[in-house]
Amino acid sequence: MVRPAGIDREHSTVRIERDIETLAGPDYTLSDAAIRRYAYTPVYRNTLDYFTRELERIGFEVFEDPVGTLVARNRPPGEGAFGIGSHCDSNRNGGKYDGTMGVVTALEVCRLNEELGLDLPLQLISFLEEEGSGFGQMLLGSRIVAQRVSEEELKESFLAIDDGRSFWEHARGAGYEPERWRECIRILDGLTGWVEMHIEQARVLQDTGNRIGIVTGIAGYVHADVIVRGRGDHAGATPMDFRLDPGPVVAECILELERLARAAGGGTVGTTGEIEVHPGLINAIPEWIRFSLDVRGVDEEAFQGVAREIAVYAEAAAGLRGLTAEIRQRQTLPATPLDEQIVGALAAAAAETGEPYMLMASGAAHDTMCVADHVPSAMVFVPCRDGISHSPHEAAEPEDAALAAEIILSAIQALH
Amino acid sequence: MVRPAGIDREHSTVRIERDIETLAGPDYTLSDAAIRRYAYTPVYRNTLDYFTRELERIGFEVFEDPVGTLVARNRPPGEGAFGIGSHCDSNRNGGKYDGTMGVVTALEVCRLNEELGLDLPLQLISFLEEEGSGFGQMLLGSRIVAQRVSEEELKESFLAIDDGRSFWEHARGAGYEPERWRECIRILDGLTGWVEMHIEQARVLQDTGNRIGIVTGIAGYVHADVIVRGRGDHAGATPMDFRLDPGPVVAECILELERLARAAGGGTVGTTGEIEVHPGLINAIPEWIRFSLDVRGVDEEAFQGVAREIAVYAEAAAGLRGLTAEIRQRQTLPATPLDEQIVGALAAAAAETGEPYMLMASGAAHDTMCVADHVPSAMVFVPCRDGISHSPHEAAEPEDAALAAEIILSAIQALH
Repeated sequence: MVRPAGIDREHSTVRIERDIETLAGPDYTLSDAAIRRYAYTPVYRNTLDYFTRELERIGFEVFEDPVGTLVARNRPPGEGAFGIGSHCDSNRNGGKYDGTMGVVTALEVCRLNEELGLDLPLQLISFLEEEGSGFGQMLLGSRIVAQRVSEEELKESFLAIDDGRSFWEHARGAGYEPERWRECIRILDGLTGWVEMHIEQARVLQDTGNRIGIVTGIAGYVHADVIVRGRGDHAGATPMDFRLDPGPVVAECILELERLARAAGGGTVGTTGEIEVHPGLINAIPEWIRFSLDVRGVDEEAFQGVAREIAVYAEAAAGLRGLTAEIRQRQTLPATPLDEQIVGALAAAAAETGEPYMLMASGAAHDTMCVADHVPSAMVFVPCRDGISHSPHEAAEPEDAALAAEIILSAIQALH
Repeated sequence: MVRPAGIDREHSTVRIERDIETLAGPDYTLSDAAIRRYAYTPVYRNTLDYFTRELERIGFEVFEDPVGTLVARNRPPGEGAFGIGSHCDSNRNGGKYDGTMGVVTALEVCRLNEELGLDLPLQLISFLEEEGSGFGQMLLGSRIVAQRVSEEELKESFLAIDDGRSFWEHARGAGYEPERWRECIRILDGLTGWVEMHIEQARVLQDTGNRIGIVTGIAGYVHADVIVRGRGDHAGATPMDFRLDPGPVVAECILELERLARAAGGGTVGTTGEIEVHPGLINAIPEWIRFSLDVRGVDEEAFQGVAREIAVYAEAAAGLRGLTAEIRQRQTLPATPLDEQIVGALAAAAAETGEPYMLMASGAAHDTMCVADHVPSAMVFVPCRDGISHSPHEAAEPEDAALAAEIILSAIQALH
């Protein structure tokens, strides 16, 4: 492998920083206090227009799929190209980096390709509505591309958080043709590979001192709720032996979830992020408690096993105390293994730079999950400060993004 | 001991039922769906007027203390009398029986005393604002009587839930003289004893098949919050070993609280009724979790010990995992032992009836806690269905209240 000659990483850093800061300006966010940007808002339109201008300037042809995912190619339709990109919408209370830095880095790869005269065939994609801020649906643009939605959902179920109107209606209102949504998958036609760069959204890179993470697989997950039902009673007047208190059952489950996730290994994680107590008064024994389960991992057997075992455990633990536990599934997504050849090329390119990097799993979901079924795919992570994302306090280094751009470009060059 | 001759328990039952049902009518509650009645509302005024009419009809002289606690005597001021009563305000979403049934039963004791020509010296009290529905302050009327408040609190801190105006302002608006609040204690002058009847608010009497509980002591309590602070992180992207998750610490504390309360014995109970998770998202490791502690008991050493030990445990459990736990006290009230002589007289009177009764502690707080420092006191409990109180589903039997009236009257007779 040969490092592309003439890469000026400082120059890339400056351009990436300029893009990021421009897209954090008042024309590009609905909020003064955070980056708030989602599908079919004027600030989202402005963002797509920014990328369109920058990409047309370097000779790319830009179009949007029938619902608004942006695509830019330096080859005519029908010819093969290597895909790069991410998403440029944000969490409602988001930061400058999540998603947007990935599109900006892809743009920088395109610029370097042009500047260095490499003439690699490239296709940039900025997926619509990854965060779900507009319609409460994560990965919506890439799920539409991958046909992981139904027409009924787009017409009836996916409703705007702001006004309750359907995705379908909003898409039409913005000038798109949602009735042609099944054609969205064609934006993957001819892609020979796909790499998405994203901030890590955790602190593994920071805490291990690595600047680059090469992602070998994206965790699947089980999202569910457990409702433990006991009997509401007066906290003072009800002796310990007369109680059917769901609290200790929930406590046992939280500890067992932690034990199971640790025992499962393979990067499996288990989290209780929501606890709802009814009636929730200091002097009332709860009638019921709901707690959420988020179980993830790249080892399908391992994380699915934890999800099954905690459900069995909850029912048993409740039963032992004369209570009941009901498990309600919310959503399940399988793990996504990434392409070994692309991962290998990225790792080799990273090694070539001499900068510290590591192979790692992605615990968070990404648009790449929807691409990987159709196109050999991989991802590159850069550190984000203290693992903070989905917050205006999100921070990441343009220097790391410039390094990622160089690694991605080198890898694509090596693969061709 | 001689059972008062001529008591017609069925007649008492009818009168008690009539009182209860009348006071559940539209003139006596702000809500159609529940009994909602608190200080200085027209429906509360109507309720005091009802008791005043009924008591004046049997020759009692009725007055109110400077803030609105109702007092009725069949002896001139200065002469000794035996105190009976409870409160007639309700929880905001309350039932017909909590408090009101105690005042109604005291009224029935007065009627029986008159009818049977016993001529026992009696003083009925209906304390203002026991539930805290008006100003968020439990036992407010009896705390004012017992001087367990400060003038600053009455003027500045105790604010109406409905409009944020002070207790002081509301009391004046209703025609009272809050500036004379220190004189309220004088309503206890000359009391030779005090008995409050109340629904049990738990299921011990129901589940043990007893119709009457003679209360030997009222639990004291510690109300506090524990805040466990960890680090908010992405639930998918943060490996188990990189977490500072407050969830398992809270779980360990809930289980330890249960263990400590059981081990303490003496009727000590410990409850976590509130759990607040921040940010409370299924896919976010909580940054912090607050949970409430309600620790009670009649054995002061035992329940205070549990409160101390759980605080120490929480700090240690958090520290072991690299987190912190902070304990914030809300309120502490000592246990209230009740008067052995009155308890003995009530138990003897109960035994005399041949009906099933038991000696028990009160886990719930009652106005009697404020009386007992000044006057030898006791309480009588009657069952409430399934232990439900503070709810429109609250239910209790007028027959049991009639039985209680008979027992209380007999005991007072025996004590004179």
